[in-house]
Amino acid sequence: MPALSKKGLSMPASPIRKLVPYAEAAKKRGVEVIHLNIGQPDIKTPTHALDAVRKAPIEVLEYSRSEGNESYRIKLAQYYSKHGIEVTPEEILITTGGSEALSFVMGCIADPGDEIIIPEPFYANYNGFSVANGVKVIPLASDISDNFALPPIESFEDYITPRTRAILLCNPGNPTGYLYSQEEVQKLSELVRKHDLFLIADEVYREFAYDGKEHYSILQEPGMEAHAVVVDSVSKRYSMCGARIGCIVSRNKDLMAVCLKFAQARLSPPTLAQIASEAALDTPQSYFDDVIREYTARRDLLLEALSKIKGIRIARPQGAFYCMVELPVADADHFAQWLLEEFQWEGATVMVAPAAGFYATPGLGTREVRIAYVLEREQLRKAVQILGKALEIYPG
Amino acid sequence: MPALSKKGLSMPASPIRKLVPYAEAAKKRGVEVIHLNIGQPDIKTPTHALDAVRKAPIEVLEYSRSEGNESYRIKLAQYYSKHGIEVTPEEILITTGGSEALSFVMGCIADPGDEIIIPEPFYANYNGFSVANGVKVIPLASDISDNFALPPIESFEDYITPRTRAILLCNPGNPTGYLYSQEEVQKLSELVRKHDLFLIADEVYREFAYDGKEHYSILQEPGMEAHAVVVDSVSKRYSMCGARIGCIVSRNKDLMAVCLKFAQARLSPPTLAQIASEAALDTPQSYFDDVIREYTARRDLLLEALSKIKGIRIARPQGAFYCMVELPVADADHFAQWLLEEFQWEGATVMVAPAAGFYATPGLGTREVRIAYVLEREQLRKAVQILGKALEIYPG
Repeated sequence: MPALSKKGLSMPASPIRKLVPYAEAAKKRGVEVIHLNIGQPDIKTPTHALDAVRKAPIEVLEYSRSEGNESYRIKLAQYYSKHGIEVTPEEILITTGGSEALSFVMGCIADPGDEIIIPEPFYANYNGFSVANGVKVIPLASDISDNFALPPIESFEDYITPRTRAILLCNPGNPTGYLYSQEEVQKLSELVRKHDLFLIADEVYREFAYDGKEHYSILQEPGMEAHAVVVDSVSKRYSMCGARIGCIVSRNKDLMAVCLKFAQARLSPPTLAQIASEAALDTPQSYFDDVIREYTARRDLLLEALSKIKGIRIARPQGAFYCMVELPVADADHFAQWLLEEFQWEGATVMVAPAAGFYATPGLGTREVRIAYVLEREQLRKAVQILGKALEIYPG
Repeated sequence: MPALSKKGLSMPASPIRKLVPYAEAAKKRGVEVIHLNIGQPDIKTPTHALDAVRKAPIEVLEYSRSEGNESYRIKLAQYYSKHGIEVTPEEILITTGGSEALSFVMGCIADPGDEIIIPEPFYANYNGFSVANGVKVIPLASDISDNFALPPIESFEDYITPRTRAILLCNPGNPTGYLYSQEEVQKLSELVRKHDLFLIADEVYREFAYDGKEHYSILQEPGMEAHAVVVDSVSKRYSMCGARIGCIVSRNKDLMAVCLKFAQARLSPPTLAQIASEAALDTPQSYFDDVIREYTARRDLLLEALSKIKGIRIARPQGAFYCMVELPVADADHFAQWLLEEFQWEGATVMVAPAAGFYATPGLGTREVRIAYVLEREQLRKAVQILGKALEIYPG
């Protein structure tokens, strides 16, 4: 049997997927499983985006340009302008999801053994892209007690080494729901300029900012032309996760030229989904107003319902659609599995994402879970009720 | 300015793309440019594949499973069975094009510095995936004089080192058009078993075999369960290059488990294109019969027309839709540029792909070009006529 690579064998498993067989077994036993674990919104995709594909007069489904369709990039530049981000179509490269965008950026800026500092907890798949690229993730702990705000800037400096290539943020944060302030972005920008690093921001949840707060992009910060790289995606914005369309946005011409070579090697991003994504840019503001109103209501309901459960701590989310909760349990992994294997209340149970998988530092987050509030309110209310009942009798 | 990675800076440029600005300039001067350089077929995509997307009752464009839709993988297993390849749906993982398939496989089997032996000339983007994965390509020259047949098996053994992880084939070959025989596949299979290597075959042109010959897959060879990995794609098969749907097929469970982790990190392949690809499997044999008849006619026309040009050597293709031609010029790169910059005949010129970019060994293939016969016959005839006229007066 030929050996597999060390890299391949160290690819991390998703922290959620290991629970999937337990959820499936529960369903087979007739137990309803309410999913608080996944970031797949139930919001409908804008009809005109899907209609654009349905009506596209395609006879030969051809490659698009490696950097993405020009018409799409021109309209995307207008979208960014509406959000206070002035970029040209040449400063945008269309990718197969935010996933490919981040993978390309890592490959462009880091050689095997190089380091990227990421405040933890962070989106677990950053680990996968890092392992695939041989990049070392240097986690910097943020804390549930202040809603996972940016750690003190001095603590970043403690972790910068000659091999540090970038700081990576998710803003608003998955799994934290934290929305970085303009001041925090400014401090980080000063830091990366001082140390000549890249600042990469995963801004796929840009629109999902609550309580009247506005997202502040690293591309809005002056003096960051050489340093700022945004990773973006249509997945959550238009409830089009299956499109697999994202992009890299940067004013750093050298970086974009190298990204384009990665893009050329894989020929082009998906053609059909680009048509849908371009049409999605015509989505009226009222769609987002409705979505934000709905998510705000869900979040408020979630926070209120959770607050009635004894012994828990909650990070109040102001963005995205995730909420980190510390439970009065010793091991959230075990609790999540127990919920699926041994518990039910009125024929139903819940599936949560144990948070340890969102931390790179062993031992952190072991009592926390991530809840995605992408369910309609009645389901959400029921789920929290089940969670409360479970905690009352959980032996751990 | 933060530094880019060594890896990124060494990503190769496509051998074709550097000619694109010259082609665009020619078009601006009013010169018709006939493209012999690209592998984008003009054949129509099967209507029912596109219709399946148009009619899909999608309300939320959701993620698919990371390994691809189950219904698609079940039907794909039936497709392979029709081609004499018995695999289960679990032995198939859907990817974003053949590109992602090969990238995942490289990541699964090779760490930075590991080696993969590839008969050259080979598909130029193998270089890009290799650089991105830190894999060292070890080229083994095949020759136009015997249509780029498999080099003697002993010459492979000369190149095997402790770091060799795999041998990679493209069968039928891009750019060679060579169709490996069952005997050649058997010899290679013995070799990889002897040295405990993987044998990776890019079989995206499986259906494109001419002169009554049949493609023999490495998955048809017995005893290769642990060794054989097929990279596949719908791009050429159904003229659906823009779908970006491919797959990895292997009976090696450990390999597939690691591939799945790479797949999970990027969440899922494109949903819309999977719907089209699944429907495309219902394409009747008559479609392929027509396509093969058309390509055979184009090839025959091309070979006959080329044979009238003095001083050229041709590799007779029996598969895919490419033809390698050695021209009576010192530097095919220069000739190709000259065709676009300085030549026209009756208001038209041709764009060819200089072949040096398909070789990894410096100095090889400098007199060769790759011609893709994906144009209708009249255009093809005119293109070869122009090529002949150009060679009559080319000063190089």
